[in-house]
Amino acid sequence: MDKSSSWHSHVHHDGSGNYVSMLCPRFGDEVTIRIRTGLDAPIRRVIVRTFPDGEQVFTLMTAAERTDTAQWWTAVIPINQPTVHYRFILECDDGVWWYSAASITAYDPLDSTDFQILADYDSPDWLHTAIFYQIFPDRFANGQPNNGSAPIKTDDHQITPWNEKPDPTVPFPFVFYGGNLPGITQRIDYLHALGVNAIYLNPIFTAHSNHKYDVVDYENVDPDLGGNDALITLRQTLDERDMHYILDIVPNHCGYWHPWFQTARQDANAPEADFFTFTNHPDEYLCWLSVWSLPKLNYGSQELRHRIYENDDSAFQRWLKPPFSADGWRVDVANMLGRQGATQLEQEVSTGIRQAVKKSKPNTYLIGETFFDPTHQVQGERWDGVMNYSGLTLPLWYWLSGYRRGAHGFKGEVVSPTAWPTEALADSWQSRLAAMPWAIALQQYNLLGSHDVPRIRTVVGENDALHRLAVTILLTFPGVPGLYYGDEIGMVDSPELQARGCMIWDEDQWDHDLLAFHRDLIAFRKQSVTLQQGGFQILQVEPDTIVYQREGDREHIIVVAHRGVMPRKQRPLPITHGNIANGTQFIEYFSGQIAIVKEGLFPLPTQPQ
Amino acid sequence: MDKSSSWHSHVHHDGSGNYVSMLCPRFGDEVTIRIRTGLDAPIRRVIVRTFPDGEQVFTLMTAAERTDTAQWWTAVIPINQPTVHYRFILECDDGVWWYSAASITAYDPLDSTDFQILADYDSPDWLHTAIFYQIFPDRFANGQPNNGSAPIKTDDHQITPWNEKPDPTVPFPFVFYGGNLPGITQRIDYLHALGVNAIYLNPIFTAHSNHKYDVVDYENVDPDLGGNDALITLRQTLDERDMHYILDIVPNHCGYWHPWFQTARQDANAPEADFFTFTNHPDEYLCWLSVWSLPKLNYGSQELRHRIYENDDSAFQRWLKPPFSADGWRVDVANMLGRQGATQLEQEVSTGIRQAVKKSKPNTYLIGETFFDPTHQVQGERWDGVMNYSGLTLPLWYWLSGYRRGAHGFKGEVVSPTAWPTEALADSWQSRLAAMPWAIALQQYNLLGSHDVPRIRTVVGENDALHRLAVTILLTFPGVPGLYYGDEIGMVDSPELQARGCMIWDEDQWDHDLLAFHRDLIAFRKQSVTLQQGGFQILQVEPDTIVYQREGDREHIIVVAHRGVMPRKQRPLPITHGNIANGTQFIEYFSGQIAIVKEGLFPLPTQPQ
Repeated sequence: MDKSSSWHSHVHHDGSGNYVSMLCPRFGDEVTIRIRTGLDAPIRRVIVRTFPDGEQVFTLMTAAERTDTAQWWTAVIPINQPTVHYRFILECDDGVWWYSAASITAYDPLDSTDFQILADYDSPDWLHTAIFYQIFPDRFANGQPNNGSAPIKTDDHQITPWNEKPDPTVPFPFVFYGGNLPGITQRIDYLHALGVNAIYLNPIFTAHSNHKYDVVDYENVDPDLGGNDALITLRQTLDERDMHYILDIVPNHCGYWHPWFQTARQDANAPEADFFTFTNHPDEYLCWLSVWSLPKLNYGSQELRHRIYENDDSAFQRWLKPPFSADGWRVDVANMLGRQGATQLEQEVSTGIRQAVKKSKPNTYLIGETFFDPTHQVQGERWDGVMNYSGLTLPLWYWLSGYRRGAHGFKGEVVSPTAWPTEALADSWQSRLAAMPWAIALQQYNLLGSHDVPRIRTVVGENDALHRLAVTILLTFPGVPGLYYGDEIGMVDSPELQARGCMIWDEDQWDHDLLAFHRDLIAFRKQSVTLQQGGFQILQVEPDTIVYQREGDREHIIVVAHRGVMPRKQRPLPITHGNIANGTQFIEYFSGQIAIVKEGLFPLPTQPQ
Repeated sequence: MDKSSSWHSHVHHDGSGNYVSMLCPRFGDEVTIRIRTGLDAPIRRVIVRTFPDGEQVFTLMTAAERTDTAQWWTAVIPINQPTVHYRFILECDDGVWWYSAASITAYDPLDSTDFQILADYDSPDWLHTAIFYQIFPDRFANGQPNNGSAPIKTDDHQITPWNEKPDPTVPFPFVFYGGNLPGITQRIDYLHALGVNAIYLNPIFTAHSNHKYDVVDYENVDPDLGGNDALITLRQTLDERDMHYILDIVPNHCGYWHPWFQTARQDANAPEADFFTFTNHPDEYLCWLSVWSLPKLNYGSQELRHRIYENDDSAFQRWLKPPFSADGWRVDVANMLGRQGATQLEQEVSTGIRQAVKKSKPNTYLIGETFFDPTHQVQGERWDGVMNYSGLTLPLWYWLSGYRRGAHGFKGEVVSPTAWPTEALADSWQSRLAAMPWAIALQQYNLLGSHDVPRIRTVVGENDALHRLAVTILLTFPGVPGLYYGDEIGMVDSPELQARGCMIWDEDQWDHDLLAFHRDLIAFRKQSVTLQQGGFQILQVEPDTIVYQREGDREHIIVVAHRGVMPRKQRPLPITHGNIANGTQFIEYFSGQIAIVKEGLFPLPTQPQ
């Protein structure tokens, strides 16, 4: 589809500063809403439709300034609901059209695609400039003096030397490499030089496995990783560089060896017995995806709620306080939390966690893990954001490398013989952005990969150009970018350790060009308010190319993402519908070439292959 | 769009008996799901994707029978959630496609368009064969002996003789014609002969206005209408004919003169003061759309909840019990109920009403009024259905007569210069059907008009053919048909009384052909399980024509709805994608002509103009 061929493509609104006068208004405020349409659109009137207390209200918009590229319309709407829903009605010569966050339709769309503004919503103030770096602690760096040779705690597991293959007889979760928090602390200068300013740490609480999702003690950092003192030191080191960090918690289940579960097994009348769901005490109980070592926590128990998130010294609250002072939580398996067949407590548990955490520390960043449609979880009442697999990562993968997806218990995968059409990428992105308030969209944790999925460089078949393309999208997409450790130096999956390989510290093995590429784009993102908070508009969808812009205050950043082996054909790229006037000068970011818009066309500089 | 041009159009599933083995399964049941695809589709595998406890599960479907028109696929899924969400994945030679209730997409759709099955949901058992008739009591019939000359209660209002124009100096709500419950009782034979078997009564509780939405006593039928005894008599008369009736209640607000409000005004410390929201006692308070005579009820008050719906003798429960034994409720302004700016109690109030009502009388039919997207209200936890303006009526009007819509406080209307494109009608219908479980879709209260909007015959400019077209759609669409009194004899809006004119009892003024048309289609609907519970598939969308089928057990009912002044051009109508084989014999309902499917085409009989 040629996105510019219809006047529809010229119609644009999003929640950014050019269009909405306040990102986070208070209840009772009035907000100015603006929308732009093309100059030649057959529009008679534009109405903004709100829905206070369930009743439709039409507000006629005023025709405001008319520029070389756009007719602007403006209206003031009151923030008189916890969530103000709005969409636009375009009364035209050729009919009445509705414009909502998903698309333009010839019929009144459902409320679920409305633009939304939250009242009295507070976004963590450090988030817009944050760039995260995810670390799997056992595999990042060993910071103990006797480097790499011994674990900190005396346990029954062996430490594999850093660059050696694991013993194939040792199960995957019990291969240890001795990475720890002191190792991270020692490498802060590396992260600082890379430019990231926030860390997402995979679980660090005491557990048996290397991944530590089988927690046995929510109150102590695993001695293997350096214990609580090591976390305090890390916090102090981060503070010196104005960096933030978030922790990973598993409220959905705990480890089999957690004292709660052991007590519950021993005594069916203990309070802890209510923390779990025994179908036949003590040996049969609900687990996470039937994994016996991960018994599911049952939030029918009020006492469990107290211990996990309600009490001042609950797991969720204690780590946010000094001396640990974590800046947020990544919540594991948020999609399944509190859900057990007939009993569905996800809404009240996740809402309860939010309320407890935000009361304890308002600036906390709270994200949930889900690989699926997060819509109901990101409306302002639960998570600040989710790991944005559904809204960014997976569509991008499928567009670059084809669809390939399994499911728990399903033999094999569902596979597409071809990569996704670009329309699917565009529609997929847009549908997810449309399903949440703009303030929330800016808080999604964007990622190209994690400990749970293949590394991006592996996903793209180690194609350097596609890897860079993905990084460029990560750092220019609405939301909070998060890198996965080692991706920046070109690490790929290993057959034995998959995406959880040991960080390579031998600089001779680094892809220094790729690292410089990351540093460069990270620096660009950190100084660009347009990339952090600017609008988002998909400008063009071609068989191998998607073009989108981030629209700022008198600045446009255009991303031309091309997946083809051959360069994009030098067709002209219409640009007027992006509110970009003739004479506008663009600087090609990587080459420094100048391009000036003429006759509504954007002359794409030729790129080296 | 030619709906048959792609293999996509051959893919079909809905919640009806051919596709889902149980409409209302119990929790723990297993349900067989079937889907059909075309014979030439490039499909390798079909997977049904469910989402128990928030985790994706793929179930490979088995290739089942292959007929002359379709390849069937089948799988068994467990009913292990209060609401089982599912959609289909089509693994094909040309990519992976998703099929959900809204459409086929090249990308994973949002959960909101999933097919859905409710566990442990009970539909009122009398509903599938019900056909409603809505009566505005003051205007239907006066059944008192001194016919038409005097009101029953001595009040300050005058009774206007039945067929005369109202005194123009009397405000619209205070024009009375003396219709009452005895009048309805006396006319039951008329209704029975028409074929309707259920009545929806506009409000009958004591109030000052003719419409009685300004209730002053939830516990007594207005003496004007005959009082409680008249309702008992009506109930008995209905019982004799196995007919049902539902009442209209206003839990959103009451009348200014309701004793609760008067007490609240007099004593700010009375319990009743908490039933309302005074911004400045006693003269300033929240109202329905700022109408001073309709103070808004505040469900922050637990005592109010007790009196309206929680107590055994609450308004909602008392009328369901003998001797009144109402069969259900139409809930006025359900869209605004419990919603007051920062305080949004709609979910808990409407859920509470449902629980109270269903506990009191499980077979109760509970519908809410809304003119807007009802999605969140029709997921099984709140209303059985809504007045289906959004999902049937308004799209149909706009397609027949053009878009025209106002909003409270908006000067004038938003108007389309042309009628809706047929695609808008199809997409609008489909999007609404897709947004709710199939069992709920079958419970929507379908209507062509009501006391609140113009009569259908007026909407279509008194065009008899379009009126009949609308009636045909009403009686063939999924959901419960409801007629508005007098529409069946050709009544139109009057300048003075709008849609609330006095029922015409002078048979010389009736359109007897139209009445016979109604009787005929009503009889057809009542005996047709296919129309009551069959599947729904839009087969063709042309500029002036929409073709859909109801698919039953070895029966197909095809509706060819054509709005054009000229007959539809005699193009062939492809039909194979409706699972209709060559040689299938159709009988044109109105003319009795036979049409036999040949070469995948449906030879539409020529219709008289």
